[in-house]
Amino acid sequence: MRHSFLFLSLFFLCLTGINAQKSPLQINAERLEAQLQKLSTFGMNSKGGNDRVAFSDYDLAARAYLTEYLTALGLTVEIDAAANLIAKKKGKDQSLPVIAFGSHIDAVPNGGHYDGNVGVMGAIEVVETLIENNIQTQHPLELIIFSNEEGAIFGSRALAGKIDQATLEVPTASGYTNGAGINRLGGNTAHVLNIKRNPETLHAFLELHIEQGNRLHQKQIDIGVVEGIVGLKWWDVEITGNTNHAGTTPMEDRKDALIAAAQFILAVNEIVSQTQGAQVGTVGRIKAYPGAPNVIPGKVIASLEIRDLDAAKINSLYQQIKKRSEAIAAATQTQFEFKPIDATAAPALTDPRIQEVIRQNADALNYSHITLPSGAGHDAQDMAVLTPTGMIFVPSVNGISHAPEEFSTPEAIAKGATVLLNSILAIDNILFED
Amino acid sequence: MRHSFLFLSLFFLCLTGINAQKSPLQINAERLEAQLQKLSTFGMNSKGGNDRVAFSDYDLAARAYLTEYLTALGLTVEIDAAANLIAKKKGKDQSLPVIAFGSHIDAVPNGGHYDGNVGVMGAIEVVETLIENNIQTQHPLELIIFSNEEGAIFGSRALAGKIDQATLEVPTASGYTNGAGINRLGGNTAHVLNIKRNPETLHAFLELHIEQGNRLHQKQIDIGVVEGIVGLKWWDVEITGNTNHAGTTPMEDRKDALIAAAQFILAVNEIVSQTQGAQVGTVGRIKAYPGAPNVIPGKVIASLEIRDLDAAKINSLYQQIKKRSEAIAAATQTQFEFKPIDATAAPALTDPRIQEVIRQNADALNYSHITLPSGAGHDAQDMAVLTPTGMIFVPSVNGISHAPEEFSTPEAIAKGATVLLNSILAIDNILFED
Repeated sequence: MRHSFLFLSLFFLCLTGINAQKSPLQINAERLEAQLQKLSTFGMNSKGGNDRVAFSDYDLAARAYLTEYLTALGLTVEIDAAANLIAKKKGKDQSLPVIAFGSHIDAVPNGGHYDGNVGVMGAIEVVETLIENNIQTQHPLELIIFSNEEGAIFGSRALAGKIDQATLEVPTASGYTNGAGINRLGGNTAHVLNIKRNPETLHAFLELHIEQGNRLHQKQIDIGVVEGIVGLKWWDVEITGNTNHAGTTPMEDRKDALIAAAQFILAVNEIVSQTQGAQVGTVGRIKAYPGAPNVIPGKVIASLEIRDLDAAKINSLYQQIKKRSEAIAAATQTQFEFKPIDATAAPALTDPRIQEVIRQNADALNYSHITLPSGAGHDAQDMAVLTPTGMIFVPSVNGISHAPEEFSTPEAIAKGATVLLNSILAIDNILFED
Repeated sequence: MRHSFLFLSLFFLCLTGINAQKSPLQINAERLEAQLQKLSTFGMNSKGGNDRVAFSDYDLAARAYLTEYLTALGLTVEIDAAANLIAKKKGKDQSLPVIAFGSHIDAVPNGGHYDGNVGVMGAIEVVETLIENNIQTQHPLELIIFSNEEGAIFGSRALAGKIDQATLEVPTASGYTNGAGINRLGGNTAHVLNIKRNPETLHAFLELHIEQGNRLHQKQIDIGVVEGIVGLKWWDVEITGNTNHAGTTPMEDRKDALIAAAQFILAVNEIVSQTQGAQVGTVGRIKAYPGAPNVIPGKVIASLEIRDLDAAKINSLYQQIKKRSEAIAAATQTQFEFKPIDATAAPALTDPRIQEVIRQNADALNYSHITLPSGAGHDAQDMAVLTPTGMIFVPSVNGISHAPEEFSTPEAIAKGATVLLNSILAIDNILFED
């Protein structure tokens, strides 16, 4: 139950309207840019890329730097059993549930300097701005730097109670397993399986992040209001025809599994593209057997991935693709088999009330905005299981991500952090009735 | 110059007509079947397959058995520098050029017991039948068992002068290089590069072989008159798009190299199938990069093989495919690059006069026949460079080849060997004017 400010619920729309009409607080864009530059020095490689993979020495050094910085700001820094770094700022009423916000600082190998970093440094800038302006929220604040987002969405999944022993034993890009890695960062494998967060301790969660696509940048939109993090399903699609001699088997006698696979790849693209909505479908991996230029492939194994905000739509697209595959199989004299791969993630919707808060604050700041799904996974998707969650996207130049060329302008980032700041202040005055 | 029987050329059509109308000689089907069974014991594996790969102990043992057998028949057995086993039977006029015939006894690993074997044992049966009937041809006969056909078409290429030092150093399925392998069989690497056969020493070459496809078997035709051994060309086709995040990149913004590859695969099939003729085109190998289910492929490398009897047609099909690829590239925002692979073989046509001899003898025997190309490579393709060459195919049950299930019926094989026998006798009476 989160109803300490019960009276506020009566004036919900009215109050948020008032908040949005007040002169919004501004963050310090120069300081945020300088902090991002500073963070990028931990793990910058010779190609200009970011090698600060989770659990690496770079990760340790950057966390030590941030711990010192946040402590100096007057926050209490703790590391939980999952090695999430949590910096706490007291609220006026410490009995209230927490407003949490944050992201991650770990990167993919040779990644960029914005994915995750923008959300963490934006969150720190929010806290500094609050301190400078002597603002204390009603709710306590928790700035969370989640552990190993890129490798396993580890820290947030641990808080959502989704980690098991097998997860701990999975090796990561650092060379350490998740278990050894979190112990390295000050976590504790002995307790990590039991740190599922009690939802009653949370009021809301907010994450600022780069879009990692090209929707905002292309349309020159300032702010993306994330309506949800898409779910995904994976399949291995095994197509069986007849292996045969490519020289002696006439075209009309072939049962070529790669011909069937080619029709399948185009069918996936057509079905997913022609359906209304933002869903995506991808065949990213393919192998023909035996795989010699002079042998007709008797077998092909290809991957199929479908993502959407709506699990029912994922299933409907899959059913359409499966049905079309039956027609392809009949026409090419092959067989199709769909084998689900254990890499599914359920769609995670953000809270419509928080979406509205973000929109109103963007409007008040004269920032353009659109509502869009996140095609990539984020810590917010697991926090959404626990508490009303919102996500703010800022444009990625040319949509490039997970690469050294990843870039968002300081102005774009500053706008996102300013929306984050004012959204936290607005949410501080909202009671979310379940 | 091969004109010792100059007067015969005047009565060419007439005489071959007479020959075809004489009661044809018959081979001994039971003995041939027993000999094939005997040969299959050298290298038969537990799956019923044939492991008699070139240069293996099985190959050595089988050749020793055949040497003894042929010597006992009264033939002179020699092994040339390329380890071709040549059994000679004198003609009435030893100054005449030789009628050569034969095939190979080496197999692919876990291959069948008919590919090559039928041609060799059929040739031996021809010789036995001649001896039993006290028939001596005008021309000397050479029964050739070529070395390492499956691995490198080695022995016949050596006779055609196509072997170089690099060929000798190529490892084979036996573990031995071609060079070490031929030395093992009694060949001689010191001389093998210089054994190109003088065309004037040859009158003709004939090879009996299983079809390795399903044309004769499917249509219940007794004899295939091979019009030529198709040439082939290989390319690596490199398609470049844009690697991107499969979750965050909308369908309409993608430059998916695998979508382009799928269109390419179908275009190859369509262009090759819709053109009149027996040509074949195959994409047998494909790889998408980076090859993860959640990444849009930015690059695909696929193989392209085209085979036909006519080199100009191979080129014309390639040009059509290349042109269509330009349209696909434009539509999918990708680039195509075609890189020729050094695995090309020129088409080798058989001699139309020998084709006609085979047809007339099949007719005289009341065997049904069709004329067809060979999609697979054979020793005959290199002998065709040296001398008028013919090839006789017998049906393969269900077209299976290079597998333990490879099978041709004893009746089918006997018909092929009988046609070979009578064709040799007919050719003995023909003068081929160049």
